[in-house]
Amino acid sequence: MKKFKIKPVNTSLEQSLKRKIDQKTKPLGALGRLEELALQIGTIQQTLTPSLSNPHILVFAGDHGIVEEGVSAYPQEVTWQMVMNFIQGGAAINVFCKQHGITLNVVDAGVNYDFPEGLEGLVYNKVGKGTRNFLKGQAMTIEQAQRCIESSSEIIKSIHAKGCNIIGFGEMGIGNTTSASALMSLFCDIPVAQCVGLGTGLNESALQHKTAVVTEALKQYNKHDTPIAMLATFGGFEIAQIVGAMLQAAELGMIILVDGFITTSAYLVAQAIEPAVRDYSIFCHQSQEKGHTLMLQALDVKPLLDLNMRLGEGTGAAVAYPIVQSAVAFLNQMASFESASVSGKKA
Amino acid sequence: MKKFKIKPVNTSLEQSLKRKIDQKTKPLGALGRLEELALQIGTIQQTLTPSLSNPHILVFAGDHGIVEEGVSAYPQEVTWQMVMNFIQGGAAINVFCKQHGITLNVVDAGVNYDFPEGLEGLVYNKVGKGTRNFLKGQAMTIEQAQRCIESSSEIIKSIHAKGCNIIGFGEMGIGNTTSASALMSLFCDIPVAQCVGLGTGLNESALQHKTAVVTEALKQYNKHDTPIAMLATFGGFEIAQIVGAMLQAAELGMIILVDGFITTSAYLVAQAIEPAVRDYSIFCHQSQEKGHTLMLQALDVKPLLDLNMRLGEGTGAAVAYPIVQSAVAFLNQMASFESASVSGKKA
Repeated sequence: MKKFKIKPVNTSLEQSLKRKIDQKTKPLGALGRLEELALQIGTIQQTLTPSLSNPHILVFAGDHGIVEEGVSAYPQEVTWQMVMNFIQGGAAINVFCKQHGITLNVVDAGVNYDFPEGLEGLVYNKVGKGTRNFLKGQAMTIEQAQRCIESSSEIIKSIHAKGCNIIGFGEMGIGNTTSASALMSLFCDIPVAQCVGLGTGLNESALQHKTAVVTEALKQYNKHDTPIAMLATFGGFEIAQIVGAMLQAAELGMIILVDGFITTSAYLVAQAIEPAVRDYSIFCHQSQEKGHTLMLQALDVKPLLDLNMRLGEGTGAAVAYPIVQSAVAFLNQMASFESASVSGKKA
Repeated sequence: MKKFKIKPVNTSLEQSLKRKIDQKTKPLGALGRLEELALQIGTIQQTLTPSLSNPHILVFAGDHGIVEEGVSAYPQEVTWQMVMNFIQGGAAINVFCKQHGITLNVVDAGVNYDFPEGLEGLVYNKVGKGTRNFLKGQAMTIEQAQRCIESSSEIIKSIHAKGCNIIGFGEMGIGNTTSASALMSLFCDIPVAQCVGLGTGLNESALQHKTAVVTEALKQYNKHDTPIAMLATFGGFEIAQIVGAMLQAAELGMIILVDGFITTSAYLVAQAIEPAVRDYSIFCHQSQEKGHTLMLQALDVKPLLDLNMRLGEGTGAAVAYPIVQSAVAFLNQMASFESASVSGKKA
C-alpha cells in the first residue's frame, strides 16, 4: 500500500498572517470566515501573499453493484450518460467551472460502460465496470482499492505539475449515497438510520428499504478492520479514487475543496489514513442530503455555504470557489490603516 | 413626497420557469437556493433567459450626531477617511467589486467633511454635514429625509440608464449601527436590547451605554408616525438615501442586493413605504451584528451567506454576487434531460 507523507502545516507564519489581517482597513475580525480562510491558505502556502493558481475540479465517476437492491431513484445508465453530459459541457458542474475559470476533468474510475476512446476531458482510469453488490460481499478487492488510490494519486501529480495549487473533487455514480452512508456509519460510528437519506429523490418507503439494505450489509461487517478494508467493502471506485486524490493533493501541499455527502465520505477515509489531510481541506458546502449535517458535525467543521444543494458533481465546491478567492484577494489587495491614513479604534 | 410606482412582479411565467428548471440534468430541486434565485430573477425580468448586466454597488456614506453620546468604538473622522479609502481602491468592497466586475460608486450622502471637488467615483449628494444627535431631537428634518429619497432616486435612474439591471447597496458611517438599531426596534417592534449589538467592536460596558442611549431616544418617540417621520427621527442620511435608492430600483424593475444590518434597516423603511420592493430584493448575507438575525427573522427571509462577516460597505452583497450569477448561468446554460439524452427518474 502506497504511503503518503503528509506534513501537518507549519504554523510559524500564523502570527504574521494575523497581524497582516488585523492591520487591514476594517474592524478586527469583521471579515469573519474570509479571515480564517486567508489564515489557512497563507499557512498552507507559507507566505503572507498566497495565490490560487490553475484551479481544477475532478469529477470521479463509478458504478455501484448495490443498485441491484433498488436503492436509487434513477437507473444505472444515468452514470455514463451524465459522464457524456460532462464531456459535452451540459451539466451544472460545467456551468460553474466555466463561470469561475476552473478546469474540469472527468475521471472514469469505474463506470459500467465502454466509453469511446479519445474523449477530450475524460481521464481513463477504470478499475472495474462497477463494484459488486456489497450486500453479497466486498464491493471491491483490497487490491482494487489500493489500485484506485495509487492511480488517482498519479492523476493529481500530473495536474500539480501543470501549476495547479487548488483542487476540488466531485463525483457521479448512481447508488453512491448508499455507499457513502455505510462508510459514514462505520467511520463516524453513527446509527445507519441517521446516515441514510433521500439521495437523488427517493420516496419514504424506498428510503426505508435503502436503510434496511445498509443495515443488513453492515451487520456482516467486522468493525475492527483497517480503513482500506472498510473502503473496499463499501466504497465505490470513484470514492476510493477520491481518497487517493485527496491524500496526494495534501502531500503536495495543495488546497483541497471538499464538496458534499459523497466527497466528504471519501474525506473520512482519507483522514483515517492520514489525519494531517485536514490542514489542507476547505469544507465548501452543507448538502441537503440528510447525513451530511451529522457527518460535518462529527468532523467538527462548519462549511462555507448552505444553499440546500444536493447535486454532487463538485457543484458545492465550484460555487464556493469565489469565496476562497475573496479571502486571498482581501489579504493581498486591501490597504492597511497606516497605508490608507485611516484612524484606528479609540483608546 | 415622491411616490414610487412599484409593481408586484407578474408571476405568469412562474410555471414555465419551473418547468425549464426541472428539465435540467439534475435531480428535482437539487440546486436548492440557486433554483429559487433563478425563478425570482426570471420572474422579475419576465423571461426564461434572464441576464445580469452592468452590476453596480453603491456605498452611501453619512455621519451621525449620535456619536456625541459615545456609541462607537471608532472616531467620526473614520467615515471620511474610509470614503477616501474607497476612492483610492483600498477597502474590502473595492477588492470584492474588482473580483466580480462590479462597478463601485461612493455617494457622499452626508459626511461631516468637505471632500475636494472632482474625485473620481464619488457622487456628491450631501444633504447635511452629519445628522443631529437624535437623543436631543430629530436626526434630520422631514424635508431632509425627502430630499435624501428624491436625490438618490435620481442617482439610480442615471445608473439604470447605463444598462444596469442589478444593484447592491452598502454604507459607511460611524455610529450607524445605533441608528439602525433604533429603526429596527420601531419597525419590527422588537425590544431595544435585542436590537443593539457590538457594531465595530464595543466592549460590554459600552454596549450597555449604547443600549441605554437608544432606549432613552425611543422613549421620546411617538410610534404612530409615518415611516418617513420615523426615518427622519432616527435615520442617517446614508440610510435615507438607500431607502430612496431601493424604491427607485424596484420601480425600474432592477434586482436589489440587500447587504447587512444597516442596509436591511433601510430596507425595513422601504418596505413599509412600498411592500412590493420585496419582490425585487435578494438578501445576501447574515451579518454577525447581533440584531441582524432577528431582523431577517422578522422579515421571514433566509440570506444566501452566513460567513460571520460584519463589515458593511456592501461587502456581503459583493461576496454573494457570484452565487446570483450561478443561478442565472445554470438556467441559461445547462442541458435538459432531453437535449443531453439522459434518462429520467424511474417510474
